[in-house]
Amino acid sequence: MGEAQVSLEHLFRVFTKPEHKDSKLAQIEQHLSDNILDFLSQHVVTKKTSLEEIEQDFCLSQVPESPEFVSAHAESLLDKLVAHSVNTYSPTFIGHMTSALPYFHLPLAKLLVGLNQNLVKIETSKAFTPLERQVLGMMHHLVYEQPDEFYQHYLHSARHALGAFCSGGTIANITALWVARNKILGPKGGFAGVAKAGLAAAYRFYDIQQLGVMCSRRGHYSLSKAVDALGLGRQQLLTLPCPQQTLDPRQALEHGKRYQEDGNRLLAIVGIGGTTETGHIDPLDELADVAKELGCWFHVDAAWGGATLFSEQYRARLKGVERADSVTIDAHKQMYVPMGAGMALFKNPEDANTVRHHAQYILREGSKDLGATTLEGSRNGMAMMVYSSLHIFGRRGYELLINQSIEKAKAFAHMIERHPDFELITSPTLSILTYRVCPQAIQEKLRTASKEERHQINQKVDRLVVNVQKLQREAGKSFVSRTRLETPQHPDRPVTVFRVVLANPLTSHNDLAAILAEQHLIATNNRVWQDLDEGKYSLTA
Amino acid sequence: MGEAQVSLEHLFRVFTKPEHKDSKLAQIEQHLSDNILDFLSQHVVTKKTSLEEIEQDFCLSQVPESPEFVSAHAESLLDKLVAHSVNTYSPTFIGHMTSALPYFHLPLAKLLVGLNQNLVKIETSKAFTPLERQVLGMMHHLVYEQPDEFYQHYLHSARHALGAFCSGGTIANITALWVARNKILGPKGGFAGVAKAGLAAAYRFYDIQQLGVMCSRRGHYSLSKAVDALGLGRQQLLTLPCPQQTLDPRQALEHGKRYQEDGNRLLAIVGIGGTTETGHIDPLDELADVAKELGCWFHVDAAWGGATLFSEQYRARLKGVERADSVTIDAHKQMYVPMGAGMALFKNPEDANTVRHHAQYILREGSKDLGATTLEGSRNGMAMMVYSSLHIFGRRGYELLINQSIEKAKAFAHMIERHPDFELITSPTLSILTYRVCPQAIQEKLRTASKEERHQINQKVDRLVVNVQKLQREAGKSFVSRTRLETPQHPDRPVTVFRVVLANPLTSHNDLAAILAEQHLIATNNRVWQDLDEGKYSLTA
Repeated sequence: MGEAQVSLEHLFRVFTKPEHKDSKLAQIEQHLSDNILDFLSQHVVTKKTSLEEIEQDFCLSQVPESPEFVSAHAESLLDKLVAHSVNTYSPTFIGHMTSALPYFHLPLAKLLVGLNQNLVKIETSKAFTPLERQVLGMMHHLVYEQPDEFYQHYLHSARHALGAFCSGGTIANITALWVARNKILGPKGGFAGVAKAGLAAAYRFYDIQQLGVMCSRRGHYSLSKAVDALGLGRQQLLTLPCPQQTLDPRQALEHGKRYQEDGNRLLAIVGIGGTTETGHIDPLDELADVAKELGCWFHVDAAWGGATLFSEQYRARLKGVERADSVTIDAHKQMYVPMGAGMALFKNPEDANTVRHHAQYILREGSKDLGATTLEGSRNGMAMMVYSSLHIFGRRGYELLINQSIEKAKAFAHMIERHPDFELITSPTLSILTYRVCPQAIQEKLRTASKEERHQINQKVDRLVVNVQKLQREAGKSFVSRTRLETPQHPDRPVTVFRVVLANPLTSHNDLAAILAEQHLIATNNRVWQDLDEGKYSLTA
Repeated sequence: MGEAQVSLEHLFRVFTKPEHKDSKLAQIEQHLSDNILDFLSQHVVTKKTSLEEIEQDFCLSQVPESPEFVSAHAESLLDKLVAHSVNTYSPTFIGHMTSALPYFHLPLAKLLVGLNQNLVKIETSKAFTPLERQVLGMMHHLVYEQPDEFYQHYLHSARHALGAFCSGGTIANITALWVARNKILGPKGGFAGVAKAGLAAAYRFYDIQQLGVMCSRRGHYSLSKAVDALGLGRQQLLTLPCPQQTLDPRQALEHGKRYQEDGNRLLAIVGIGGTTETGHIDPLDELADVAKELGCWFHVDAAWGGATLFSEQYRARLKGVERADSVTIDAHKQMYVPMGAGMALFKNPEDANTVRHHAQYILREGSKDLGATTLEGSRNGMAMMVYSSLHIFGRRGYELLINQSIEKAKAFAHMIERHPDFELITSPTLSILTYRVCPQAIQEKLRTASKEERHQINQKVDRLVVNVQKLQREAGKSFVSRTRLETPQHPDRPVTVFRVVLANPLTSHNDLAAILAEQHLIATNNRVWQDLDEGKYSLTA
């Protein structure tokens, strides 16, 4: 690795002189701009490399003593980092929510860094602050559809916020529940409110044993982080069983009543607008009724599914979301914005004031600095990426993207159903579905087997699914994720399933057929398949 | 604004076809690459535009219905957004911590978006996970200098974390105090620990009235967010007065003892490694002793000053930081990385386990997924920017940058001291200093004035400083921020001061001389200066 000269002149050069057009870094740039799929398929190594091997390239613990030439470093990035990255643009990478992005984000990313604004305060962001407020306003309108006068009044009001821009859905969910907690345990009579006086004092003042948050078992793990961080405790995340993948409003009401009768207080019901694991949507409208009856906050985690609101055809699936007090939407999911763009939206623009804070040198009283009501402090201008996407796609563009994803998922579900050796576990409400591989004869056997036999067989099939998922991933051509689910088909115990997210617009029907064929091939060659074939169900067989 | 066609073909094009080389967006890119200072000075409008005017460009609240051509949109970004951004690369923008960045970050930003990894889990980040762990390890070594075997053992251990990568210092501070809270109120005997059982139950079990965090009044506002969000309550942020800008260890010990004798528990002392307002460093070594004696956590918020550890000459100013249980460092400050790169480092690699969480589909037990111990969930690969910077600058490169910033600040302080009409308020410990403009005669007058007179005069000088800061900012050539400080020179009451951050390597001595000259010109032409000259001290004069 070439050592660069350590002199102020050399250092200043990296600030003042761009890379030469023939430099390695300039070449990388050019290749990305010309054909990103080609760049990735040329540089991302598909053969299996163990994590331990990769770690060898990142095992030094001391900051390198001497500078390195930029071009030499760029070579090393290609070898060590890009080669062993995940090709999220690949049409056959359908296991997670990260997908190909539109080309215009590449130059925009450069503009973002070139401007390097800090959105915590207007002094270091200027037009970015109104821009971020507008993006939050547009997303607020998408959900809540308030009249024009509402937005004229609140969009740029220093004393209000229609939402909080966050690095992702987790911070958005935490922010929403933080606002909810501070509102529900707010100042009253002589009590200063939980924000100032703390949680223990608030429980005493409001005579509360425990404060809880309710959701289905499909609730995102960020909710468990939220109740931990906010001081409620993970035991107060009341997760109700959901064999149908959605929260049952009757159960929620009963459970909530019982909880409150025991001297506790329900802080919030969290409805899910597209679960991470299966894409199901809770019955939001009915949950809004339950929240109202229980007198608690209603939050909708639509990090994944929120973008469905762009589609005339499918937006009704989120009916009731407009009654939520707060909604989480991630733009870096179905809005095709680079990683790092979450939003918490608040129905009532006053609510964010429950977490408002000031400082002497910034966020002064009356300023429009967005940092006054966000959990994060310094933030970059990611809102620009959302702004540009909203304009370049428009509502109708997003509608087409959403519709085709859902339709592709339906087509894939159909493919699975027709295949004798696959079993569709959850149909796509949005563009996510789950299924498993299971020899046809075993599927039939399961229908008549005893509970004990079913248990043994399913354990074995679980193992088959795990093996196939791992082997397919290691082969490097495609990637499907896996999870464990309670399902109505297999009520005795959760089963392990493949999980597929059809967000990448580049994924074709042929890609899907090929993925299924590859899984079938891997499965039938697997030892566990043979065991199942031979009736050896016990795990030790 | 040209409406683009709404068809799947058109939409697919933005995913599959790059922008044409002559397109507006490609031109913007090229200009950024060729000469970013020129791009910014050509496109960022320097004349005063009121925020209200800018807001007019961002006042629509509905998502645009139809798509827009990328080039048309790029034009509009230049007009509406870039024109009214802040030129953070400008050598005379010395009011905040955002500055010019080295050129190599522009292509790296493209690479980051092109790879679009999600660091919450290895399945969507692969080599980025070991890379992020290595970056945390290098920064850990910079602070704690543990032996090689330590890093061999912990750097890539699935059951440990040397730190948490965050979107910024605020999340880093919250994460550190979250870990501290969960450790100090951890599981014991029959008690499940605060993470599971919640804060109120923890107070009962540990027989604690209140849990507090202590720092000086210069503590960053994120600490107040932290005690709010974590449920301690803002009243339990014990901020001690610090006329010398640093926390007095003796006072801290006394105050802490008294606090604990009253049935409370001190969670943490937060030492500051470079205050946001004046750059002062708390006596960290002595505060470590105090924390030890009080039996509490010791956190150091070195978001700004942490990079000083790269300098052999100045690292001793942070002596004692290596005794901290946790340390916050922002790479987007003095490490010249784009906005969005904070880190919380943990001395003890076990500590992050107090906030560890799992999910079925990711973050499985035993996995090395970094998301298991971070407050954030999905995150982008910003760690690559830090990794590249550490390699391209090397320790010695950063040392030169840090040294020249501090020396430049000293030179500016000297300039101010020599000028009869300016008054240096705080000397630079690091590269931050504060001062005010005050006619020489008034400075003399203040030395002999009565308390009441001093009060009146200082109120008037405060107003002069505010006016000059605003007028200079609006003139658009340079930007200096302002704050209010308690100081030993003016013990009666806080005074308003200019605040200068000398982080931009492009800022020259001539720039500084020009800024001072401009301030003097604005000041002497200001009505308030004339009032002071004429002895009209009362504010209504």
